Amino acid sequence: MTIRVDLNSDLGEGYGAWTLGDDNAMLTVVTSANIACGFHAGDPTTLLATCRSAATQNVRIGAQVGYNDLSGFGRRFIDVSPTDLAADVIYQLGALDGLARVAGSRVTYVKPHGALYNAIVHHREQARAVVDAVRSYDASLPVLGLPGSVFLAEAEAAGLTVVTEAFADRAYTPEGTLVPRNQPGAVLHNPVAIAERVRRIVLEGVVDAIDGSRVTVRADSVCVHGDTPAAVDMATEIRRLLTASDVTITPFT
Amino acid sequence: MTIRVDLNSDLGEGYGAWTLGDDNAMLTVVTSANIACGFHAGDPTTLLATCRSAATQNVRIGAQVGYNDLSGFGRRFIDVSPTDLAADVIYQLGALDGLARVAGSRVTYVKPHGALYNAIVHHREQARAVVDAVRSYDASLPVLGLPGSVFLAEAEAAGLTVVTEAFADRAYTPEGTLVPRNQPGAVLHNPVAIAERVRRIVLEGVVDAIDGSRVTVRADSVCVHGDTPAAVDMATEIRRLLTASDVTITPFT
Amino acid sequence: MTIRVDLNSDLGEGYGAWTLGDDNAMLTVVTSANIACGFHAGDPTTLLATCRSAATQNVRIGAQVGYNDLSGFGRRFIDVSPTDLAADVIYQLGALDGLARVAGSRVTYVKPHGALYNAIVHHREQARAVVDAVRSYDASLPVLGLPGSVFLAEAEAAGLTVVTEAFADRAYTPEGTLVPRNQPGAVLHNPVAIAERVRRIVLEGVVDAIDGSRVTVRADSVCVHGDTPAAVDMATEIRRLLTASDVTITPFT
Amino acid sequence: MTIRVDLNSDLGEGYGAWTLGDDNAMLTVVTSANIACGFHAGDPTTLLATCRSAATQNVRIGAQVGYNDLSGFGRRFIDVSPTDLAADVIYQLGALDGLARVAGSRVTYVKPHGALYNAIVHHREQARAVVDAVRSYDASLPVLGLPGSVFLAEAEAAGLTVVTEAFADRAYTPEGTLVPRNQPGAVLHNPVAIAERVRRIVLEGVVDAIDGSRVTVRADSVCVHGDTPAAVDMATEIRRLLTASDVTITPFT
Repeated sequence: MTIRVDLNSDLGEGYGAWTLGDDNAMLTVVTSANIACGFHAGDPTTLLATCRSAATQNVRIGAQVGYNDLSGFGRRFIDVSPTDLAADVIYQLGALDGLARVAGSRVTYVKPHGALYNAIVHHREQARAVVDAVRSYDASLPVLGLPGSVFLAEAEAAGLTVVTEAFADRAYTPEGTLVPRNQPGAVLHNPVAIAERVRRIVLEGVVDAIDGSRVTVRADSVCVHGDTPAAVDMATEIRRLLTASDVTITPFT
Repeated sequence: MTIRVDLNSDLGEGYGAWTLGDDNAMLTVVTSANIACGFHAGDPTTLLATCRSAATQNVRIGAQVGYNDLSGFGRRFIDVSPTDLAADVIYQLGALDGLARVAGSRVTYVKPHGALYNAIVHHREQARAVVDAVRSYDASLPVLGLPGSVFLAEAEAAGLTVVTEAFADRAYTPEGTLVPRNQPGAVLHNPVAIAERVRRIVLEGVVDAIDGSRVTVRADSVCVHGDTPAAVDMATEIRRLLTASDVTITPFT
Repeated sequence: MTIRVDLNSDLGEGYGAWTLGDDNAMLTVVTSANIACGFHAGDPTTLLATCRSAATQNVRIGAQVGYNDLSGFGRRFIDVSPTDLAADVIYQLGALDGLARVAGSRVTYVKPHGALYNAIVHHREQARAVVDAVRSYDASLPVLGLPGSVFLAEAEAAGLTVVTEAFADRAYTPEGTLVPRNQPGAVLHNPVAIAERVRRIVLEGVVDAIDGSRVTVRADSVCVHGDTPAAVDMATEIRRLLTASDVTITPFT
Repeated sequence: MTIRVDLNSDLGEGYGAWTLGDDNAMLTVVTSANIACGFHAGDPTTLLATCRSAATQNVRIGAQVGYNDLSGFGRRFIDVSPTDLAADVIYQLGALDGLARVAGSRVTYVKPHGALYNAIVHHREQARAVVDAVRSYDASLPVLGLPGSVFLAEAEAAGLTVVTEAFADRAYTPEGTLVPRNQPGAVLHNPVAIAERVRRIVLEGVVDAIDGSRVTVRADSVCVHGDTPAAVDMATEIRRLLTASDVTITPFT
C-alpha cells in the first residue's frame, strides 16, 4: 500500500516593496500553497503573481485567511466579533479566489493563519465564525487545521471536509499541541533532524514531544515553513527523505 | 414605446464605526447599487450587510472599485502602475463578489469610483488596466462609465459591454464632461430642478451645460448620490418625476 | 469651599470623508479634549483642525492613544506585545503633540482609548507598556484612567500624576467597574437622569450601580460622550446642572 | 582647506515582520540617517529601534516624510491636497521626533521620500505644503533636496535652511535632474565606478550625465542607498575612497 502525504507551506507573504521567503523555490517542493489574502500579508500584485506561479507548477492554492493586522503580520490575537470575523474571512476568500481564477486556478481549501490559527484551537466563537464563513462561501472547500482543535470539530459538525496537519519545525507539547513560539525550543532548526521527525510522523504517526514523551500525530498534510533561505533547504530535505522512504507526496484528497 | 432608464447610486461606503448615507432608503429608490469594495470605503461587515439588503430588495449589485486610499476616500489620483491597478481591481472584484454570493446575489457590473473614475476618462494606461482586470475576471461583466471616455472606448474595443451614465446632481461642461468638484457650481442641490434635469436627459437626451449651452447626453443609467439626507430626497424626487413621466425605472440590460 | 471638576470628551474621531460627533459643540462644553491619534481614528487633517479648535476655545488637549485598528475603531482587544505597544503609544503621542504645537497648544495628558482603556484595568503588561511609554516621552504628563485600575496603580508607582475619572452615561457594577458595552443597560440615555447622576458623583462621591447598590466613585474628571447629537444635549445638561449646583467646571490640575 | 561632505541614507524602512536593508551596517557608514515615519514604511517598533541605533552611533536623525502609501512604498505620486499633505507631514514629523527623543536624540532635518521627493522638484503646491509643515513644526529644521528644485527654492524663500544633495547610484540627465527609475541605466551598480563618481562630485563638483555630457552638481550631502547587501558594500567603498581622498565625512552644518 502506498503511503501518501501532502506538503503545505505559507506563500505570497510579501507586501509591496517587501518580500518574504523564496516562493518559487518552495513551489518546487510543496503540493499545497497556503497563499496570504491581504489581511496579514500579500498585496494584490504579489498574490496574483504567486497564484500564477502555483498554477504553472500545478500546486494547489489554499486561502490563508488571517486577522486584519499588517503591522503584526497576523500574529497577535484580536478579539474580533464572530460577525466581523466571518465577513473578514469571506472577503479574503473571495479576493484570493478571484486572483486564483484569473491565474487559471481556484482556491481549493482554507487554512487560517498565525494567531487566528492558534486562537481557534480553543476559541469556539471565532472557530464557528470561520466555519460559517467557509460554509457560506463554498461548503465543498476543505479546511486545514490542528488535529483535536475546536476548529476542526466545528468544521466537521458543520459538514466541511477537514484535513489534519502536523508541523515539521515546531515542538509539540505532551498533549499534542504546539509549544508557543515565544517559549524556548518552540522552533526547530536542524534540517536532518526535522526531516527524520516528519518521516516518523508520516510513517509511524508519532512525534517526540518537548518533554521526551511520545505523542500520536495524525497528519494528512505536513506544514513546512518557507520564509527563510534555511527553510527552503529544510523543506527540500523533508521531500528528499520522504521520497527515499517511498512516501508519495501528493495533494490531500 | 416605453422609455427605460436605470438609476444607480454609491452604497456601502461606511467603514467600521463610521457610516455614510442612508443605504436602506436609497435601496428603495435605485435599481443598481454600486457597492464599495474596501479600498476607498467599506469594511467587510458593512459590505456584506449592504449586499444582503440589495439582494433582499432585488437591487442589482455592481463593484465600485477604487484606489487603495481610505484616508482620501479614493478621491485623489494615484499614479499606480497598470500592473498594480489591474491586480487591485481583481482583488476588489473577487472580494465583493464573494460577499455578494454569500448574500444570495452576484456582482453583475463594474463602476470605478472617484478619482479612478475621473482619471480613466483620459488616462489610457489606467483605463486599460481596469478593462484588462474586468475582462480577465469575467468578460461578461458590463462596465459603467462616462460617455466619450477613454475607459468606455477601451472597454468596447476589448469586447466588454459598456453602459453610459449621466449624473443627476453634477454640472456639465459644454464638452459634456463633468465640472470638477472643486469648481463653483459643480454640484447641484435643488431636488426639483435636478429631477427636471434628469427628466430631460432621459426623455430628450440633452442637458444644459454650466455656460448655458445645450449638450447631448446619452445615458443608459443615471447616477444619484445618496451620501446625505438631502440626497435621499433628491433621489426620491427624481424617481417620482420619471415615473410620472411614464419612464420605466429598471436595471440596464 | 469650591467643588471643582473637569469634563472630558473623546474628539477628533473622524477619518477622511467620515465624521463622528459634533466636535465644535462639545468644545463649548468640556474642559479637556481627548483627541484621537490616528490609530483608532483621526486622519492628520481632522486632528490638526480639532487641535486648532481646542486651542482657540482654551480647551486642554489630551492624547487618546489606542490600538492600531481603524476598522475596529480601537474597540477590540489586541494581544500586542509590551514592546510594540509602548512604541505605538510613543508614536501616537509624538504625532498628536506635533499637531497640537502647530496649533499653538500642547498635549497635556494621556487617556487610553476603547479596548486598550478596558484591557489595562486588569492587564498588567499592557498597563506597564503604556506607563513606560508616557514616562519615557514626558514624565510630567498626567494619565487619565479608571479608579482602582492596574493602569493607575502602575502609573502611580512609576511616578506619573494620575487623574481618576467617572463615566456619565455608563452603568457601574457593584465593584465600581463599568458594565461592558455589550450587556443590557450598559449605556444610559436619559440626559436629565444622567446629569443628576453626575451631580451626585461630583458632590457626594457616589453612584447607583446596576444592581441598585450604592458605589463610591472618586472622580477628578467626568467623561461625557460626544459622538451623537443626543450626546451633545446630554453634555450640555450635565454642564448646566453642575453649574447650577455651584460646581466649578475647570481643567484638573 | 578641508573638504567636508555628509553621507545620508534611507533607514528604518522595514514594517512589522518585513525588513529592508542592513540598517546597523549602514549606520557605521553614514553621518545622517533619513528615518521613515510610518507612512511609506516603518512601524513604531522598527522606528524606535532605528532611532536608538542612530543615537548610539552618533548618527544624526532626519525625518523621511512620505505619501501615505504602504503598499506602494511611497513611490507613487498621489494628488493629495496641500492642506492634507501639510497635516500628514506634521503628523509624521511629530511621531518620529517623539521616538527620537525617547531614544535620546532629536529629528534634526527633513528629507521627503520617494514620489513626494520627485514630485516637489516641480510641483509647487505640494512643495509649499511640505515647507509650510516644516516651518510650522520647527522653523530651525533644515530640509534636504535636489539642487534647483522648486522645493528648495520655496524652502529658501520661507527662511528654512536648505541642504543640497547628490545621489551616488543614480544617473543624471544633462539638466542635472535624476533619470527616472523606470528608464534604462537609471540606477548604477558598480561600487568602484560609483565611488569614483562621488569623489568627483565632492572634489570637483561635476558628474557625467547619461549622455556623456558633464554636469555641475553642488552637494552638501551625498545619498547612498542601503536597501540591498550590495548597497552596503557600495556605501563602504564610497566612504573608503572619500577618506583616502582626504575628504572629511561629517554631518552638514
